[in-house]
Amino acid sequence: MKIRCQKADLLKGVNFVSKAVPTKTTMAILECILIDASSGEIKLTANNMELGIETIINGTIEERGIVALDAKIFSDIVRKLPDNEVTIETDASFNTKITCEKAKFFNVGKSGEDFSYIPVVTRNQPIIISQYTLREIIRKTIFTVPDKDNNKMMTGELLEIKDGKLKAVALDGHRVSIRYVDLKDATNDVNVVVPKNTLNEIIKIIDGGVDDFVNIFVTDNHIVFEFDQTTVVSRIIQGEFFKIEQMLSADYETKVKINKKDLLDCIDRANTIVNEGDKKPIIVNVSDNVMSLSVTSFIGSMNEDIDIVKEGKDIMIGFNPKFVMDALKAIDDEEINLYMLNAKSPCFIKDDEGTYIYIVLPVNFNNPGAN
Amino acid sequence: MKIRCQKADLLKGVNFVSKAVPTKTTMAILECILIDASSGEIKLTANNMELGIETIINGTIEERGIVALDAKIFSDIVRKLPDNEVTIETDASFNTKITCEKAKFFNVGKSGEDFSYIPVVTRNQPIIISQYTLREIIRKTIFTVPDKDNNKMMTGELLEIKDGKLKAVALDGHRVSIRYVDLKDATNDVNVVVPKNTLNEIIKIIDGGVDDFVNIFVTDNHIVFEFDQTTVVSRIIQGEFFKIEQMLSADYETKVKINKKDLLDCIDRANTIVNEGDKKPIIVNVSDNVMSLSVTSFIGSMNEDIDIVKEGKDIMIGFNPKFVMDALKAIDDEEINLYMLNAKSPCFIKDDEGTYIYIVLPVNFNNPGAN
Repeated sequence: MKIRCQKADLLKGVNFVSKAVPTKTTMAILECILIDASSGEIKLTANNMELGIETIINGTIEERGIVALDAKIFSDIVRKLPDNEVTIETDASFNTKITCEKAKFFNVGKSGEDFSYIPVVTRNQPIIISQYTLREIIRKTIFTVPDKDNNKMMTGELLEIKDGKLKAVALDGHRVSIRYVDLKDATNDVNVVVPKNTLNEIIKIIDGGVDDFVNIFVTDNHIVFEFDQTTVVSRIIQGEFFKIEQMLSADYETKVKINKKDLLDCIDRANTIVNEGDKKPIIVNVSDNVMSLSVTSFIGSMNEDIDIVKEGKDIMIGFNPKFVMDALKAIDDEEINLYMLNAKSPCFIKDDEGTYIYIVLPVNFNNPGAN
Repeated sequence: MKIRCQKADLLKGVNFVSKAVPTKTTMAILECILIDASSGEIKLTANNMELGIETIINGTIEERGIVALDAKIFSDIVRKLPDNEVTIETDASFNTKITCEKAKFFNVGKSGEDFSYIPVVTRNQPIIISQYTLREIIRKTIFTVPDKDNNKMMTGELLEIKDGKLKAVALDGHRVSIRYVDLKDATNDVNVVVPKNTLNEIIKIIDGGVDDFVNIFVTDNHIVFEFDQTTVVSRIIQGEFFKIEQMLSADYETKVKINKKDLLDCIDRANTIVNEGDKKPIIVNVSDNVMSLSVTSFIGSMNEDIDIVKEGKDIMIGFNPKFVMDALKAIDDEEINLYMLNAKSPCFIKDDEGTYIYIVLPVNFNNPGAN
């Protein structure tokens, strides 16, 4: 094989597919990036068996062929090359020479014959969505999905399309994050749970704006994201996602309108006297026009009043400060609405336009009268 | 005690003195920042017994007094306060209330009676140097000093003043870094070895420019840096620093003029195929107008030619790539000169103006003919 391409194109491709290189694996071939120039195009592929990424880069093929190169070393080398034309050349034993200007690298590649290509997926009609929208809807919910959980279903995020609306739902045992977006083009209904890891990588590589689009295909076992010259294929998590509909119809007794930044800064301050792992709740005391936050720990105590507009009953309720902060950080609105029923029922943060719902379960507090 | 000050002033002071709070200590009081408002000024102090920092902040004293507050918690709180006036108030039991706008923190302080104030040092005539110059001369040599060494002397850097010239010398067993700077004002001779840790903190807090000055005082046991409202006192390392004069008179057989960035980039590329801890040398082969660099490791091999201007003999010599890179990164010149005698003798990187000398010992290489 002998190919020539620009360093910038090669680096972009390598950075894309590297996201699918497993950090730990017993199959050495999966630690490689496959360069496939056996047909008329230069294709880079990496695959960790859950997530596979393939991208075509611009360049010239002087001699067709295939080689698999250790991903870490290859991407290190490419990153450090001068910004100029790169030549990659292999002999019959897959000894590989990478040349750029006066720099020459020699290392040993593999044949790639036992490399796992990304699965071939039947492409039905695509769901078309702007890269910006997909990235934002994932970014603003994904933090809720736990990194690990015995329940496999909980390590994924639900992407559901119904009546031309895309809904993303992420949850753990203490909170639920839901985002909605209207799709421009009518499309088939979809209901699929995608692993957190896949979505985390997707939001890193779809870095386009509102006018850059990604085509999504869903099959029984896979979800495919296609954009520009890149294809990302991920397994989906089989089974039915958690029923959350009955939660959403919850009633409320107290509605609080509050400045988001004021609340976020206040909880951030409260956190300074809570050691990590302490699990000290912040106690929220809502009365007319004032929400008083307080926290007491082994270190000391803190309290602060925030101006609010209140409708309904007074309430005293405790929260895990991290969960509230995570939700607030995912909201762009300047003013937000909190809906609460009682000290045992979840608090809803949602907007009137119906673009988001963040639900946080309260926690018990033993000493509500502190300070 | 009751004091009032602006959050920005308080934060700056806390950030300064925090550099002298020990990370590990058996004396709980040393983990505190002392607020001393017992005289007419608000003074913050921290002291880890090797390094002590004291700074005076603007503010109003409503009631004189002293309190010692846990440095980590106090600086966390101050950092998160709204950008407004802060009130710190203690009662007779050192219960401390920190108030800013509507935020109120309560925690328990200490009396500070067993706090170690920074030592009182007799101030003779100061050495006056611009903050910029002092910071740069340290920054460009300090990386050579090992973090730990059985030889206490090696964990410090020599600052020497002689004939109106300041010299900084840092070394480990494999290299020496020397920087010179002319002082504007005549001053006493000084020869003092300052702990690496002190100098690392000093370069973080003296962030002024060429027209901001720092006064330095040296006594038998301490070095004092005074600037603006801040005083830094450090122990010095007792004993005589390593004799390096005879090294400096070394002869050379080969002089190479090379573009610094070309050489740095090339070594950086070579490093991609050397695993950390591998200790593979880069092999430098100097012939007429070309310096060829090569490295061979378990991963593969690399070589590259760089255009040079050579005077004297051809030479083949091996180096630890990290040591050469460290020196190159500390040099601002576009073109540099390397002076070499033979494959066993140190390589000198120095300028004609005599502002720096970086000396790197070569390493043996077994397989010079690779590639």
